[in-house]
Amino acid sequence: METVLAEILDRRAATPQRLLAAMRHAVLGGGKRLRPFLTVETAVLCGANAAIAMPAAAAIELLHCYSLVHDDLPSMDDDDLRRGQPTVHKAFDEATAILAGDALLTLAFEAMADDGAHPLPETRARLTLGLARAGGMTGMVGGQMLDLAAEGRWGAARLTPDDILHLQALKTGALLAFSVEAGGLAAGADAGLQARLAQYGKAVGGAFQIADDILDHEADAATLGKRAGKDAEKGKGTLVTALGLTEARAICDRLIDDAIAALDCFGAEAETLRDAARFVGARRS
Amino acid sequence: METVLAEILDRRAATPQRLLAAMRHAVLGGGKRLRPFLTVETAVLCGANAAIAMPAAAAIELLHCYSLVHDDLPSMDDDDLRRGQPTVHKAFDEATAILAGDALLTLAFEAMADDGAHPLPETRARLTLGLARAGGMTGMVGGQMLDLAAEGRWGAARLTPDDILHLQALKTGALLAFSVEAGGLAAGADAGLQARLAQYGKAVGGAFQIADDILDHEADAATLGKRAGKDAEKGKGTLVTALGLTEARAICDRLIDDAIAALDCFGAEAETLRDAARFVGARRS
Repeated sequence: METVLAEILDRRAATPQRLLAAMRHAVLGGGKRLRPFLTVETAVLCGANAAIAMPAAAAIELLHCYSLVHDDLPSMDDDDLRRGQPTVHKAFDEATAILAGDALLTLAFEAMADDGAHPLPETRARLTLGLARAGGMTGMVGGQMLDLAAEGRWGAARLTPDDILHLQALKTGALLAFSVEAGGLAAGADAGLQARLAQYGKAVGGAFQIADDILDHEADAATLGKRAGKDAEKGKGTLVTALGLTEARAICDRLIDDAIAALDCFGAEAETLRDAARFVGARRS
Repeated sequence: METVLAEILDRRAATPQRLLAAMRHAVLGGGKRLRPFLTVETAVLCGANAAIAMPAAAAIELLHCYSLVHDDLPSMDDDDLRRGQPTVHKAFDEATAILAGDALLTLAFEAMADDGAHPLPETRARLTLGLARAGGMTGMVGGQMLDLAAEGRWGAARLTPDDILHLQALKTGALLAFSVEAGGLAAGADAGLQARLAQYGKAVGGAFQIADDILDHEADAATLGKRAGKDAEKGKGTLVTALGLTEARAICDRLIDDAIAALDCFGAEAETLRDAARFVGARRS
């Protein structure tokens, strides 16, 4: 995946150098590559060669990276560090970060629609449409907007646990679920299989964000000795603050069980994706 | 086009209300609709029904609108007014403007890849790819980056007239040229016809930006009594400052002649597009 991403970026020779450097900083600075992993593993589980899912996997990761660059901006979450490195607007400047994000978002669609991305134009068009839906106003961008609203920026916000689950389903769930769906699409999976994969993807996406909330809470409790972490400081409602650690952990565990159960129709060949669900729930970073 | 754009926006009921309001402010606040006009007129000239090009035309306009929202941001061109209305970050706030731009960019690709956008999946994929290329790191975003560099933000910049033409070809030329190309693609034009249209689109795109420079120069000379306008103030190199008004006007006129000549193979049915080229060169706003 690292090679594929670097190649996609470096193939565009006409790009202004500072812009390309900022895009490389955003994309090639580490990262778990969970989304492309899910896409490729799902395609393989559906009987395809990993190569057929690589361009879609790379496109999804590019979209994910753009979202981190924009989320870190001063007017958004105002973060100086990501993965131990300066964020793009710190390493470069704000205008460059906004444009690098815009360019990565656009490049994600270019990579998805490219003639070499998938042999079937119908599949390329469906993958592109799915990426746009997962990433847009009723998906990731909509979720980020709800997340900022939840801080109370535009008036007091009182989120119910259901509101929080909805917010998370948009902000991180939609793209994680699409990562799985894209693997099935690239592999040409039939409707029955896609329904199973959708269940798995939705559950993994939900578990991922709750695990994130738990991590934020625990990391802070351990290192700062306070009850709640960065999210609570910002006034963000998380499932941990709304329901307590025990209940949040129970919901997360249930989602991981759901994800594993969705793959019941498979045998040992699905063990990698089952492990991925367990990893998402138990991750420490 | 106004109805099509409003429908595309309002069809997404799950969108957070503040985000949707900002997107509507950005898209439905007037605008010449030059790009969608070129797309639809080109498709009609190629023998297609206008309706088949409408979704592509709307997608291009959505992409154009996103670029205006982000270009106006405080860290970019820092503009408070557009078309006589407060810019999105003034009417709402900076975070909302960044997300509204991101959402419009993503929506452009959703509109282009949508099943209803064009009956042929191959055409949908090609339109999506073309939009991504015209809008991305080697197109519009790359051009905006060069434009900021030309202000001297990241060290002294001394642009030759050729550098300025290159910058403009990326920043505004690529999307204008694609507006024409997209009409041909949607209409299923053959390669020979597409080559003619590409010539026309490239010339119109070039003329458009030089006319913009001339407008900026003249508006300022007339209203403020200074020699150079807003662009020169910001230290931006324009063709007017580099070559003088007479030479810039001559290049613009030559490009309009080129655009009209590219349509030589057509008769009276191409008069609307010829008029569009003349309009672009002579426009006063």
